Amino acid sequence: MRECGVGVARIGEFAWALMEPKEGTFDFSLFDRAIAALAKHDIKIIFGTPTATPPKWLTQKYPEVLYVFADRQIANDQSRRHYNYNSPVYRRLSKRIVTALLSYYKDNPHIIGWQIDNEFNNENPEAWSESDRIAFRVWLKAKYQTLDNLNRRWGTIFWSQLYTDWSQVDLPFKTGALHNPSLMLDYRRFISDSVESYLQDQIEIIRRYRPRDFITQNGVFRNIDYYRLSRNTDLHSAANYPLFSDDPQYSTGASLTGHRSYVGRFMIMEQQTGAGGQTYLLRSPRPGEMRLWTFQSIAHGADGIIHFRWRSAQRGIEQYWQGVLDQDNVPRTRYNEFKHEGAEINKIGAEIFDSKIISDIAVLRDFDNEWAFEHQFLTSEVRVPTVYGDFFRAASEQKHNLDFINGGMDFNRYKIIFAPFQLLMDEQLAAKMKAYVAQGGTLIMSAHSGVKDRDNAMTDQTIPIMGLKELFGVEVDSYHAYQPPSRGKNSIKFTDGAEIPVNVFAEHLKTGNAKVIAAWERDFLQGIPAATENRYGGGKAVYYGSFFNLDSARYLLARYAKECNLIPLFVNLPREIEVTRRTRGKNHYYFILNHKNESVMVNIGSGFYDLLEEKVSPADITISPFGYRVLRKSD
Amino acid sequence: MRECGVGVARIGEFAWALMEPKEGTFDFSLFDRAIAALAKHDIKIIFGTPTATPPKWLTQKYPEVLYVFADRQIANDQSRRHYNYNSPVYRRLSKRIVTALLSYYKDNPHIIGWQIDNEFNNENPEAWSESDRIAFRVWLKAKYQTLDNLNRRWGTIFWSQLYTDWSQVDLPFKTGALHNPSLMLDYRRFISDSVESYLQDQIEIIRRYRPRDFITQNGVFRNIDYYRLSRNTDLHSAANYPLFSDDPQYSTGASLTGHRSYVGRFMIMEQQTGAGGQTYLLRSPRPGEMRLWTFQSIAHGADGIIHFRWRSAQRGIEQYWQGVLDQDNVPRTRYNEFKHEGAEINKIGAEIFDSKIISDIAVLRDFDNEWAFEHQFLTSEVRVPTVYGDFFRAASEQKHNLDFINGGMDFNRYKIIFAPFQLLMDEQLAAKMKAYVAQGGTLIMSAHSGVKDRDNAMTDQTIPIMGLKELFGVEVDSYHAYQPPSRGKNSIKFTDGAEIPVNVFAEHLKTGNAKVIAAWERDFLQGIPAATENRYGGGKAVYYGSFFNLDSARYLLARYAKECNLIPLFVNLPREIEVTRRTRGKNHYYFILNHKNESVMVNIGSGFYDLLEEKVSPADITISPFGYRVLRKSD
Amino acid sequence: MRECGVGVARIGEFAWALMEPKEGTFDFSLFDRAIAALAKHDIKIIFGTPTATPPKWLTQKYPEVLYVFADRQIANDQSRRHYNYNSPVYRRLSKRIVTALLSYYKDNPHIIGWQIDNEFNNENPEAWSESDRIAFRVWLKAKYQTLDNLNRRWGTIFWSQLYTDWSQVDLPFKTGALHNPSLMLDYRRFISDSVESYLQDQIEIIRRYRPRDFITQNGVFRNIDYYRLSRNTDLHSAANYPLFSDDPQYSTGASLTGHRSYVGRFMIMEQQTGAGGQTYLLRSPRPGEMRLWTFQSIAHGADGIIHFRWRSAQRGIEQYWQGVLDQDNVPRTRYNEFKHEGAEINKIGAEIFDSKIISDIAVLRDFDNEWAFEHQFLTSEVRVPTVYGDFFRAASEQKHNLDFINGGMDFNRYKIIFAPFQLLMDEQLAAKMKAYVAQGGTLIMSAHSGVKDRDNAMTDQTIPIMGLKELFGVEVDSYHAYQPPSRGKNSIKFTDGAEIPVNVFAEHLKTGNAKVIAAWERDFLQGIPAATENRYGGGKAVYYGSFFNLDSARYLLARYAKECNLIPLFVNLPREIEVTRRTRGKNHYYFILNHKNESVMVNIGSGFYDLLEEKVSPADITISPFGYRVLRKSD
Repeated sequence: MRECGVGVARIGEFAWALMEPKEGTFDFSLFDRAIAALAKHDIKIIFGTPTATPPKWLTQKYPEVLYVFADRQIANDQSRRHYNYNSPVYRRLSKRIVTALLSYYKDNPHIIGWQIDNEFNNENPEAWSESDRIAFRVWLKAKYQTLDNLNRRWGTIFWSQLYTDWSQVDLPFKTGALHNPSLMLDYRRFISDSVESYLQDQIEIIRRYRPRDFITQNGVFRNIDYYRLSRNTDLHSAANYPLFSDDPQYSTGASLTGHRSYVGRFMIMEQQTGAGGQTYLLRSPRPGEMRLWTFQSIAHGADGIIHFRWRSAQRGIEQYWQGVLDQDNVPRTRYNEFKHEGAEINKIGAEIFDSKIISDIAVLRDFDNEWAFEHQFLTSEVRVPTVYGDFFRAASEQKHNLDFINGGMDFNRYKIIFAPFQLLMDEQLAAKMKAYVAQGGTLIMSAHSGVKDRDNAMTDQTIPIMGLKELFGVEVDSYHAYQPPSRGKNSIKFTDGAEIPVNVFAEHLKTGNAKVIAAWERDFLQGIPAATENRYGGGKAVYYGSFFNLDSARYLLARYAKECNLIPLFVNLPREIEVTRRTRGKNHYYFILNHKNESVMVNIGSGFYDLLEEKVSPADITISPFGYRVLRKSD
Repeated sequence: MRECGVGVARIGEFAWALMEPKEGTFDFSLFDRAIAALAKHDIKIIFGTPTATPPKWLTQKYPEVLYVFADRQIANDQSRRHYNYNSPVYRRLSKRIVTALLSYYKDNPHIIGWQIDNEFNNENPEAWSESDRIAFRVWLKAKYQTLDNLNRRWGTIFWSQLYTDWSQVDLPFKTGALHNPSLMLDYRRFISDSVESYLQDQIEIIRRYRPRDFITQNGVFRNIDYYRLSRNTDLHSAANYPLFSDDPQYSTGASLTGHRSYVGRFMIMEQQTGAGGQTYLLRSPRPGEMRLWTFQSIAHGADGIIHFRWRSAQRGIEQYWQGVLDQDNVPRTRYNEFKHEGAEINKIGAEIFDSKIISDIAVLRDFDNEWAFEHQFLTSEVRVPTVYGDFFRAASEQKHNLDFINGGMDFNRYKIIFAPFQLLMDEQLAAKMKAYVAQGGTLIMSAHSGVKDRDNAMTDQTIPIMGLKELFGVEVDSYHAYQPPSRGKNSIKFTDGAEIPVNVFAEHLKTGNAKVIAAWERDFLQGIPAATENRYGGGKAVYYGSFFNLDSARYLLARYAKECNLIPLFVNLPREIEVTRRTRGKNHYYFILNHKNESVMVNIGSGFYDLLEEKVSPADITISPFGYRVLRKSD
Repeated sequence: MRECGVGVARIGEFAWALMEPKEGTFDFSLFDRAIAALAKHDIKIIFGTPTATPPKWLTQKYPEVLYVFADRQIANDQSRRHYNYNSPVYRRLSKRIVTALLSYYKDNPHIIGWQIDNEFNNENPEAWSESDRIAFRVWLKAKYQTLDNLNRRWGTIFWSQLYTDWSQVDLPFKTGALHNPSLMLDYRRFISDSVESYLQDQIEIIRRYRPRDFITQNGVFRNIDYYRLSRNTDLHSAANYPLFSDDPQYSTGASLTGHRSYVGRFMIMEQQTGAGGQTYLLRSPRPGEMRLWTFQSIAHGADGIIHFRWRSAQRGIEQYWQGVLDQDNVPRTRYNEFKHEGAEINKIGAEIFDSKIISDIAVLRDFDNEWAFEHQFLTSEVRVPTVYGDFFRAASEQKHNLDFINGGMDFNRYKIIFAPFQLLMDEQLAAKMKAYVAQGGTLIMSAHSGVKDRDNAMTDQTIPIMGLKELFGVEVDSYHAYQPPSRGKNSIKFTDGAEIPVNVFAEHLKTGNAKVIAAWERDFLQGIPAATENRYGGGKAVYYGSFFNLDSARYLLARYAKECNLIPLFVNLPREIEVTRRTRGKNHYYFILNHKNESVMVNIGSGFYDLLEEKVSPADITISPFGYRVLRKSD
């Protein structure tokens, strides 16, 4: 490892059975030896708390801790993550092992950070146990105080659903008809809050014993609002396995943009090294791809990279998850690439570390909206996260940095904000949008926004609700849904001649003060306003009468970037060349990444210093297949 | 509502929790106010009994009432229709609330009819609870009297299935092999009878308190024989949401033909008004479509139309089910269309009301056959109800009225009867078929008819059984099944040159007295008789050696309509122009409906009075997109 | 039956409810009558023990015998095979009925053989009951002796799976993550051993009472290692329903090759007669196909043929499973074909009986490997059994006899052995492979072989492990997986110019002593060795760096058959003409089968005697559609 330049290793994240072989008996000797061996080579430790994998004695003695599936089957314990977050027993035993671990290592100088548990919600993303049921009622009572409130805000008068006792409120178990949207949204919020509460137990213990270490958790999975979950952690970390996608350039870039958004700092806890697989098998990275992906992570802001894993496992379900070394311990291509990468990172790491991506453009994300759409999906054609990817791709193609943000963050750092699927609205967000535009921002919102309140309920107001009619100078007369495949069934024709295919929703807009910038092209909606602009204070509020898609993301981003005089990081680079820029002070670090399996010649102009080559870069450079450059330019 | 010409409203169908907020405590005050408000504007009431949605106190206290799924999961009660029909507790509590409701409103002058429960079997179409299990044994005992009878008629000697005690007979729960066809058919009959028995409880209460009101139920769902279920009701009612289909012209027409057939009278309890959706979202009707569909319902015999719903709901899972008004209560396009429609209906209603569709052609339906095919489906290519739609479409294209009938109805009103999929035969039906043909009728039966008895068992007779060999003058030497897609694999060539593609079954016919009118065109069956005609008494019995499809429906309907000198309602009208005729006494009412999104010019000849325009109609008329005419002509 | 030449009938296999109508009361009178009636016409009996279908009194009184599904639902008992093999009660009651049956018929002269139970694992192929759970622990304890052994060999340190008590080991019930591969493989072995143990109970009873009768079981289903299961039986028997496949020529031939391999002798217990179906319906055989399939069975070594069934059933789920006679008992085409076939078999039977297929080529099969791949399937493109079919097809096209063998059999009878998917390796098999090649054999092994040990665990050795590197003179540097569809993404180019498309795996080979005979054609692997030959002692070990497919089977079989001077049975026959040869002493029996629905003229040369025509065959013969010849040639 040292030979490869490794400076940090993660250990311990699944080792509860070793650490507590019998209930209440602790043994950390393996980790003492491991830390000592690593320390000898100056390798620091990120320690994983082992709570993702309860020992057999635990699940056997306390079966109430087990995860329960939606069909009420109890999860078999020959696995991982088969626990439920709300089990009081599991909470108690988790705190005990973490306390034992922290108190044992409270003074160890080699540990620098802690990963709590591993991959929350990967295998247990829902809540169906008896403990969950009890906790759900407690959670609802805390939120609504009285059943009358809950009944009113959920609209339980519909279908005789009026609860007369808290014990009647239940998890949304299988039933013949479809569940109440307000119940379903609260159910997902409850799951997310359950994870957060479980996480908080361990944060408190770690802070108590080792207040200087950083704390993170690992991964992005269903039914967690990572903006909330990450609040009390120091950085976000996640796995990066580009080959779960067929189009890794953009899908990985969008994921990394997400990782960066939650806390503002992130690291990659598991960077793909070779082929991956459990029962399935993903393709192997081509020569050079592994290093490219590592640099893509750094390009998007990662301040740490750990590869998964060092040596491939002989036994267990991750035999096909290839590490740096094969099971036979013979160094081969992956080892050589890893060593090469390690040398490069050690060359540039200190300088790049903690530099930041600065973006003029943001896309507003909101887990409430994603969850509302997961239940009332409306159409098989649209999944909310896809549109974030569309905007990432459009910005990447046009060589702009891009951020994802959520409603709680500072809007004023951005020149342009895209607001897709703002189905759920509240007075606070509406006011923030108004203030943003009033102060000069450009806000571009999609169809079917401002439709419901945060209870997932429609109101008696005309859409868009809560003052957005005033902001956008437009109201929705009616919406029409084209069934999938909707593309080609209608389109939005802009006054500049551009024509963007409809994406499911076609709204019939009734303009107030807004200026019509596009109309429906065909069908009974022909000529009816489809997109509008409204001057509001110093800025502009743009309403787009369909769901966003890649076409509209490309068009709108180009249109408003130009209008706002945004300068691309580079011009005339082909699509397969991805660029990002990190900045610290007056130094800008440009990452130029070749995602193509061919050499590409590009002209980047003058004034760049090549950090890997350690010399001034020529203007014309040739980037090898899956190659990259890290360039510095100063103000 | 009054402004829109509304004369009747439906209320109450999901309101048990309001009517009986605590067990045994009743409160109808909301309905008092609602009825008074509506009465002030001369709007009459159809009252829905609230038993589709048990209150929370009920399901909490008596969990045995809950519906159980096939996998034995108990239905969650945060829903609707989560009860089982055979629960003694639910039967008792249902009777109590309905008795309370009826006795409270026994003298109310504004109520004119009752809808019992709502959408039987929509979410609870099967029977898997302990109460169902007990009731199934009682039902079987009543039918078979002795286990020996049951064992013999089900053939339980096969696979050692012989029951030696009634308690061994069970619902067809999941098992490794496939269930006995006789058991499966009785299971579906039992479900249907369970619903009917549940319905009958409420009918008796309503008749006792309000003998003059009409009684109906709402909807068509799985596992109910509506010919039996409707016996003791006054009319059939159903929802009409054409946009669940991609081809609403014909699918809706066929559904309406079905609705008309059960009792002979029907109304639409829920006419589609706008877009519909729960978690999904159907497309919105185009301008004019809503009114067209309303008139299509009337054209097919509806004597009442209620739109669903007045105002769209803010909360609950039907937020996307659009009413006349949006949630913001602003009158828009749908309101205007509804008002237009109301004025038109009020103009023609009194005259059209209770006029009847008179048809020369009928298609024989039989729920036993549909159910037998649901278990032993034989091929993924054919679903029995599809063929009814094919005949409806063929008749509609050729501008003939068409009825669906079942075996218990009068055959002699028809010149031509099509008998598809008469898999199950009994002596009574066979005799009725013979008598019908003997008296001059033309009967056209498909392949794989007269194969089994009503126990869903084959017999030791040669097919077709029970004397049908004599009627058709033909027997089946063997049948051969072409796997899907079967179209193109063989065809039936008629002596007049017509060639109809095979539909799964290819029967090798052995003719007795019958005359061969078509032979197989290809393959090892080439030249073998495929369709025959047999003179029998004054009529003709036609045997068709494949399943019917749209091609054969079109051909056979044209051939025998011509042979029987049936006159189309109109000639030379394009396909998208649907026509029907209702008749009372010497007055005939022609409905001409344009299902095309374009204006259509047609020549209808002279002698028609236009009821909506209130003037004599010209012979050449132009019907606007989705437009319609209602014309009177007298004998 | 006698008229059709029937000599043997099978009876009794589902008749437990008749034989033991009450617990402990036995009644075989029906079978006395049946045997007497058959005996009068000189028809011998194969008696089926009735344990596939427990009577109702049994499952009602002892519900613990019932099969349990993976979701823990208990199988409903209105079916067949709804028992679990490890139930002590079921074992006891099975032994009692079989003992009663055998002791009753211990001296009956008409019975010649016994079929035990029917279609093991058809509907109960897994093990999820409480009895199974207990038995699994017993089985594991017998295998591993100590938990330490089990923990080490399964690698339960992974994910904190360390068992500290035998009662913690469980069946692989549903869980969130994927199960341990070692657990999953042992689970399948346990299922197979459970069936074998259940079978053994009955074998012992039959041997005790009727030591001279032959014993078989019927069928091939999931999760049984038939090489082990058949060890104590006298012959293998199975059903032959070619129409479950769309391509019956090759799929049936491959199945029959499998049947022959298990014990070395086999018969067809259920030969398809007409259409088959339960809820579905297969196509009917064309005229002549039934007889062709019977002769195909004999051609591949069947020494007995029983058709299923004599008369089609009126009741129960097999109504559509056509027998020789229809339900109406009228002799038709199937009867006539059956009679024709019976006469032919009786003409040649005595001479053909017990002659053997002798092959120079074998394909190595291994149920462990199939099971390992069933869990860790790696790719949706490959299923292990498919490749056996590919080799059968290649050999059949090139007119060679072919055997399937397993690792326990004699290798030295073969000139060429193909070894596909030898994922799991052990020292014994590796040594046997070496000895085979050393003594002059040609062994051709596919990619991803010699990767794991028999615990389904990888080792610390370089692949291929256990000395196979030495045998093949090659080691695997790395493997790369092309995602499906992989065809076309790369190919293996042989030095003779042949080019074979990749099938998922592309191995980067590092040659030791081996000679490179092919290299990768494209992509980053271009030019890297892809197939090698290694002289080892007197023979040759060929390593093929991808999974086998039909292309490689054709190429490699042709290449090495030529190199080994193997002579095809015939040359210049078209593909649709299948040929096999059975041999006894100096007599060779050639079967020539026309699978084409057209007459085919072929030249077979001189020296053949036509057994069916009873005359010397001309060299030029015309075989009618679905026709066949049985020819004798002597050394």
